Amino acid sequence: MTDAAHPAPVTGTTRLYAVLGDPVTQVQSPGLLNPLFAELGIDAVLVPVHVRPVDLADVVRGLQCVGNLDGLFVTVPHKTAAVRLADRHSRTVEITGSANALRREADGAWLAENFDGSGFVAGLTGAGHDPAGRKVALLGAGGAGSAVAAALLTAGVDSLSISDPDGPRLAALVARLTDHWPGRVHAAAEPPLHDSDIAVNATPLGLRPDDPLPFSPRDLAPGCVVADIIMKPRDTPLLREAAALGLRVHHGMHMLTGQVDSYRAFFGLGTPRTADRGDRGPGAGRRVS
Amino acid sequence: MTDAAHPAPVTGTTRLYAVLGDPVTQVQSPGLLNPLFAELGIDAVLVPVHVRPVDLADVVRGLQCVGNLDGLFVTVPHKTAAVRLADRHSRTVEITGSANALRREADGAWLAENFDGSGFVAGLTGAGHDPAGRKVALLGAGGAGSAVAAALLTAGVDSLSISDPDGPRLAALVARLTDHWPGRVHAAAEPPLHDSDIAVNATPLGLRPDDPLPFSPRDLAPGCVVADIIMKPRDTPLLREAAALGLRVHHGMHMLTGQVDSYRAFFGLGTPRTADRGDRGPGAGRRVS
Repeated sequence: MTDAAHPAPVTGTTRLYAVLGDPVTQVQSPGLLNPLFAELGIDAVLVPVHVRPVDLADVVRGLQCVGNLDGLFVTVPHKTAAVRLADRHSRTVEITGSANALRREADGAWLAENFDGSGFVAGLTGAGHDPAGRKVALLGAGGAGSAVAAALLTAGVDSLSISDPDGPRLAALVARLTDHWPGRVHAAAEPPLHDSDIAVNATPLGLRPDDPLPFSPRDLAPGCVVADIIMKPRDTPLLREAAALGLRVHHGMHMLTGQVDSYRAFFGLGTPRTADRGDRGPGAGRRVS
Repeated sequence: MTDAAHPAPVTGTTRLYAVLGDPVTQVQSPGLLNPLFAELGIDAVLVPVHVRPVDLADVVRGLQCVGNLDGLFVTVPHKTAAVRLADRHSRTVEITGSANALRREADGAWLAENFDGSGFVAGLTGAGHDPAGRKVALLGAGGAGSAVAAALLTAGVDSLSISDPDGPRLAALVARLTDHWPGRVHAAAEPPLHDSDIAVNATPLGLRPDDPLPFSPRDLAPGCVVADIIMKPRDTPLLREAAALGLRVHHGMHMLTGQVDSYRAFFGLGTPRTADRGDRGPGAGRRVS
């Protein structure tokens, strides 16, 4: 009845998903998920919600009361704060201290999960840059950086060096990761670029045109892969300079496309829906095992 | 770039409007406004928001913090409660004690307005049933009934009789209306159906299949117009019985279609938008005079 190019109109029966960010105009998830809803014949829409950090708790508490809202996506700068706005969270959220997706459970409680890291690794591997056994330099120990770090370690990187100007935040992340992967994680005041196979920017630097580079690709060895998690602009100054130097580059969009399958499973998209969910249905029949 | 049949996809730049109700699946405004947005080339979407009365204040406070949300529509049963969730309200809201639209003003404050009554009268007049000089029996002194009453009096009805099982609510409405239109409004324990030119159902009776009729059309004089404000089902049991008796009927949808021009003016839809509204723009340049 619908096709990907022409989404179904939003009517009174449409179920809601929201993506929270500050700013929010750059978010790519509505452009990715709404065509998927149309393709799957799901009467749902993912809308952007611009919310400042000071208002996050009020907005989330309000949205969690909305009967036809089935899930929340969370992006910069709310991924860490989102954890405490859920009633439960996954092991990945426990380790990373950040969340990027919340769903309403059958009992009405809210569960927080984080797919940034697994999405990033899925995208990296899909592009031919399997991180297993490699040395990785990661810039940024915030929400996205934490998730990427945990997923890289899960995927079997040989060593992971993490840098962040916020010393206490960096030390806390390295300690949490070391609990699970002893001896493979190191805090680095300066990233060991000359000795890395893959260098990843997980900082917000590059979102704005006048941002400084998160690191200089000139210090990397030839053959190194430079990955950015920033999706817009697609070609960040970092990636442009890396490409100009002949290095292999990996765009931020891969992290999101790598997450789509995870989102489908988490929100039960594409599984049979019960006919009588009604206005108050918390998503019965849409749970994943 | 877009056409009415195929709304533009929702992306990160899309502005939001929400319609709040309990239940909400029956609301018609998204089906009416979203094609209008597409026709006008406006990157905006009106989404249904199901909220229980106990959660209304939390949900509205949260939504009012959302930077890219430009307006709220309010339907049953929240129209009375919505008044106190706005910072300011119009004269119509003052008289009726109910609101069905809220917008963010240039200074960030929220203004409540009520278009139910003017929309109902515009629809009634457009269908050839000008109420000026007529005797009208109105059932329901709630939010919608109050708005319809004030608009009918503004339109010049000769006399208006209002019935409602909630005695104090009815008396309070009649007193407020009498302040503005002395001698033309009467509270009636039983509606004077035999002596009315137009009988209006402004109660929720008819929303559910097993509701009793709000009044019996058998008691009306031939030639009487029977109007319902319920939009879904289109043909309520009341209108079906009235039509079977040969009376003229007026469907609830007319009240909404009569409001579209008012909404356009209130929310500044179709007027030039400033290019730099950005994420935090409260709707600058979209004010009506």
